[in-house]
Amino acid sequence: MPRYRLTIEYDGGPFVGWQRQDNGPSVQGAIEAAGQALTGAAAPCYGAGRTDAGVHALAMTAHIDLCRAFPAETVRDALNAHLRPAPVSILQAAAAPEGFHARYSCHGRRYLYRVLNRRTPPALARGRVWQVPGPLDCATMATAAQTFIGKHDFTTFRSSYCQADSPIRSMDSFTVAQTGEEIHFSLAAISFLHNQVRSLVGTLVQVGLGRWTISDVEGALAARDRSTCGPVAPAAGLYFAGAIYEDDGLGTDSAA
Amino acid sequence: MPRYRLTIEYDGGPFVGWQRQDNGPSVQGAIEAAGQALTGAAAPCYGAGRTDAGVHALAMTAHIDLCRAFPAETVRDALNAHLRPAPVSILQAAAAPEGFHARYSCHGRRYLYRVLNRRTPPALARGRVWQVPGPLDCATMATAAQTFIGKHDFTTFRSSYCQADSPIRSMDSFTVAQTGEEIHFSLAAISFLHNQVRSLVGTLVQVGLGRWTISDVEGALAARDRSTCGPVAPAAGLYFAGAIYEDDGLGTDSAA
Repeated sequence: MPRYRLTIEYDGGPFVGWQRQDNGPSVQGAIEAAGQALTGAAAPCYGAGRTDAGVHALAMTAHIDLCRAFPAETVRDALNAHLRPAPVSILQAAAAPEGFHARYSCHGRRYLYRVLNRRTPPALARGRVWQVPGPLDCATMATAAQTFIGKHDFTTFRSSYCQADSPIRSMDSFTVAQTGEEIHFSLAAISFLHNQVRSLVGTLVQVGLGRWTISDVEGALAARDRSTCGPVAPAAGLYFAGAIYEDDGLGTDSAA
Repeated sequence: MPRYRLTIEYDGGPFVGWQRQDNGPSVQGAIEAAGQALTGAAAPCYGAGRTDAGVHALAMTAHIDLCRAFPAETVRDALNAHLRPAPVSILQAAAAPEGFHARYSCHGRRYLYRVLNRRTPPALARGRVWQVPGPLDCATMATAAQTFIGKHDFTTFRSSYCQADSPIRSMDSFTVAQTGEEIHFSLAAISFLHNQVRSLVGTLVQVGLGRWTISDVEGALAARDRSTCGPVAPAAGLYFAGAIYEDDGLGTDSAA
């Protein structure tokens, strides 16, 4: 079956998450249904990450297997037509290189977390940010974030439902930057644990509010104890921002 | 009655427009209802502009008359609490200077129009932009926009329902700038006619697509004939961006 690599933007608000589930609409399910509408046959789709309910994507990478080949632009435009009115947009489609797998070939993932740091609620960015009313000390949060750089046991900062075999992960970068009324947390790693970004951001916000010190954060990491995590940040502020592959830029424009 | 000056952000999507109307919920009506919930008495509210259905505001200025005085922060926070869950946020409240009227004291208005210039539909910015799939020539649109600077008869570029006495308006600035995948049209004038911004942007997009020349635009303006206007741009991309007053910065922090 011809395999296509997709880059996807979505609003996670109306979905139970990326992954197909019995309890409601998923992004994966919506794309697979669009693939089936295009081809008349099952069209399995796998993503680089499995975002939770309410989590968005600026650029999720996925692959989809179709029962026959189409020009890549046709795949993009036909999937978009069949996806309507779901808030899922196929930004790019390309024939996948031999052996490409969106999840297993991926060797880097990036997330963005948006905090709206103001007293008043968001009207235009509702469902797109976490509003934190109290003033946040961005510089101290940026310093505290450096605690997590490198290889650590992130037991404290993963969901108790996390199914990963190991709690060890290696954080490549973690920046915290003010942009207007928003504070943007940008993280990069080979892979992340379940709820890891939201657990880390929620904890750093405690630092930003002056309730935790940097040494409290270090202590929580060292404790390897979920109960020492700060409050988990809500899903609405989180965005899957990008996936990295060795073949980046090699995607061809139409199916072989 | 104590008068407060408000700065308001809103998502115009669910509203019939700023102005109170019989056919559905309005932003003005929502704020007046919140004022009445706070005070128990009628709380008339007037805005600097009367945006149409689906048009948003980054910073609408309005005034509201309350039957008794409160600290300005109380007005802001109580209105926000009563507005919930409507997508309307009171960003600021201040006691209005003597004689202040949001509409009649206003001597400058700014609008922003956002075009998403890409082939694929918006998932995250849905209802917030006008998606134009074909490539747009931003520099030529920026040049064409200069046609409208200064005092002109804008008969071509106002709705046939416009109730203004005169079609003469004076455009102070009109810039067109690319920012990522978006093109932002920013306009400033003392006041605007009904549908003027959407008519101008829709016409400039014809230039950007290469369908109209700059001299076609000049001809349409000179024609003073509504039928020579380009297609009117949709409401979803339009934002009331700011209102200017002589007393700017003089608002005090609590009611006299």
